[in-house]
Amino acid sequence: MDEPADERADEPTVAKLGEFGLIQRIVARLGRGPAVALGPGDDAAVVRAPDGQVVATADALVEGRHFRRDWSGPYAVGRKAAAQNLADVVAMGASPTALLVALALPSDLPASWPLRLVDGLRDECEPLGASVVGGDVVGAEAVMVAVTALGDLGGRPPLTRSGARPGDVVAVAGTLGGSAAGLALLRAGRVDALPAQLAALVDAHRQPRPPYHAGLAAARSPSPPTAMIDVSDGLVADLGHIAAASGVCLRVRAAALPTPAGLPACAAEVRVDARAWALGGGEDHALAATFRPDAVPPAGWRVVGEVAAGSGVWVDGERWTGVAGWDHFG
Amino acid sequence: MDEPADERADEPTVAKLGEFGLIQRIVARLGRGPAVALGPGDDAAVVRAPDGQVVATADALVEGRHFRRDWSGPYAVGRKAAAQNLADVVAMGASPTALLVALALPSDLPASWPLRLVDGLRDECEPLGASVVGGDVVGAEAVMVAVTALGDLGGRPPLTRSGARPGDVVAVAGTLGGSAAGLALLRAGRVDALPAQLAALVDAHRQPRPPYHAGLAAARSPSPPTAMIDVSDGLVADLGHIAAASGVCLRVRAAALPTPAGLPACAAEVRVDARAWALGGGEDHALAATFRPDAVPPAGWRVVGEVAAGSGVWVDGERWTGVAGWDHFG
Repeated sequence: MDEPADERADEPTVAKLGEFGLIQRIVARLGRGPAVALGPGDDAAVVRAPDGQVVATADALVEGRHFRRDWSGPYAVGRKAAAQNLADVVAMGASPTALLVALALPSDLPASWPLRLVDGLRDECEPLGASVVGGDVVGAEAVMVAVTALGDLGGRPPLTRSGARPGDVVAVAGTLGGSAAGLALLRAGRVDALPAQLAALVDAHRQPRPPYHAGLAAARSPSPPTAMIDVSDGLVADLGHIAAASGVCLRVRAAALPTPAGLPACAAEVRVDARAWALGGGEDHALAATFRPDAVPPAGWRVVGEVAAGSGVWVDGERWTGVAGWDHFG
Repeated sequence: MDEPADERADEPTVAKLGEFGLIQRIVARLGRGPAVALGPGDDAAVVRAPDGQVVATADALVEGRHFRRDWSGPYAVGRKAAAQNLADVVAMGASPTALLVALALPSDLPASWPLRLVDGLRDECEPLGASVVGGDVVGAEAVMVAVTALGDLGGRPPLTRSGARPGDVVAVAGTLGGSAAGLALLRAGRVDALPAQLAALVDAHRQPRPPYHAGLAAARSPSPPTAMIDVSDGLVADLGHIAAASGVCLRVRAAALPTPAGLPACAAEVRVDARAWALGGGEDHALAATFRPDAVPPAGWRVVGEVAAGSGVWVDGERWTGVAGWDHFG
């Protein structure tokens, strides 16, 4: 992962390259995945959708809200912007095929910044067979990265939030709380000479690693999830979306939640309850799902609770009343 | 078309509604087109792509760069944000099916502003059978509207920029120069009590009306265009893209260009050469295309020149050296 680098004074700015010069350099760095019938360079791209439908989702990152340029380098911002969208596609049970990216950039930004960001987008897509097929570059006061991701269900029905039934088990793939813990370390100015376990939390905030393969393995398994969601707002908030859409109650055991190794040490360091991070922290981009009681979730999944009749999300036998997640205007 | 309205002090702000309250109100205003298999409310939408591929394009509008809130009301901004993307889909010869929209909004913005914007997006889509299927709402210092549009080619090959051949004719649907002229009137503070022909230019800037039906009629005709492009950067710039991609020279006659009725009067008013607006003005979202010499372009198209061997864009027998179009960092 790259760290924020001092920007070299002699390198060209975005304004010096100009819109078309920058786009030309961006396109030159992109790969081309197997789903691309027509890539960048025309009014629009053409992406294969072999099963006659396409999964589509959009998410944006704004400088000063979702990232700080002095805390995250452009490569990590690119990977994160791609990851949060790719995780949404996988949470539907689909394989990502393509990204479109609208980049808003200050004119005086060094041109290397958006180019490294594009490298990050590309590298996050590539292992999944997806690629950046189009987008737009516009001027703005602050950086914004708006990504749309497309995906292919391979003939399977989409895995929505509404299929959980009483008796199902609740399971999580990936880890929870790492991004919130890493953000707390950054806010406390604790980034230099960190022990490896704490440095990994800062990395988890800068560049989350969604469990794409566990999600796709579950979608393709003989007993696929009855519901699945990307954990972007916080576990309780996102399980709450499944509970509401399915008309059920989700009960989880806090001690069963998969968390990064450094979480307790970090919680002691900044005097926060680690459980609050695991239950309420956003941006981990873990996956949460419900499975039929007799299903065996594939490798990478951990059972953390069960579905019951009722409503809402209960933690260790009590309705959760702590912070459930993020509100972008809160 | 709505004009910028005084914002009522007693109405809730975006922050007061909160992210989820705002999204709920947005979704309640949306229609659902025939291509939507799964609409807003899950991690991603599912859009039908009956011919096994999907056309996809993304474009963003930024406050202070592409629009001013004191010059354009939210409804017009919404229609314009949709139009510039829908025109790109149609320029490929495809029928728009769906939009995804990332909205960046200041916390203190009245909630009615994004809601009216969504009305504009919806109303621009609806006559084409398209609808808003997903998106994201994030906080930011300035408004940004990043739109991705999807479309269906109906089994036809995409109409790219690279198919123009010497001997083809060059044709335009829609009108040219109106948006640039309207912007000049706004910049000169000339918006009150305008004659109807000049007011129409201001409207053309606020809310362009791309010739969708002429574009789709051409794509579906027995002699479809050999190349087609959305005129977003300016006619000469965009014809230049066809010339470069096709390896040909495009020759146009300025007197043949379709322009709005008020253009000469406006040019006299603000002392600009109307020809420069028609040839170099951006954001009209007209369509330009090349057709085989024996093709009869459908209703709504006007022949304005021809394709020759060579390179670049020539106007009235001379290589055009004036302003060709917009650079967003220029």
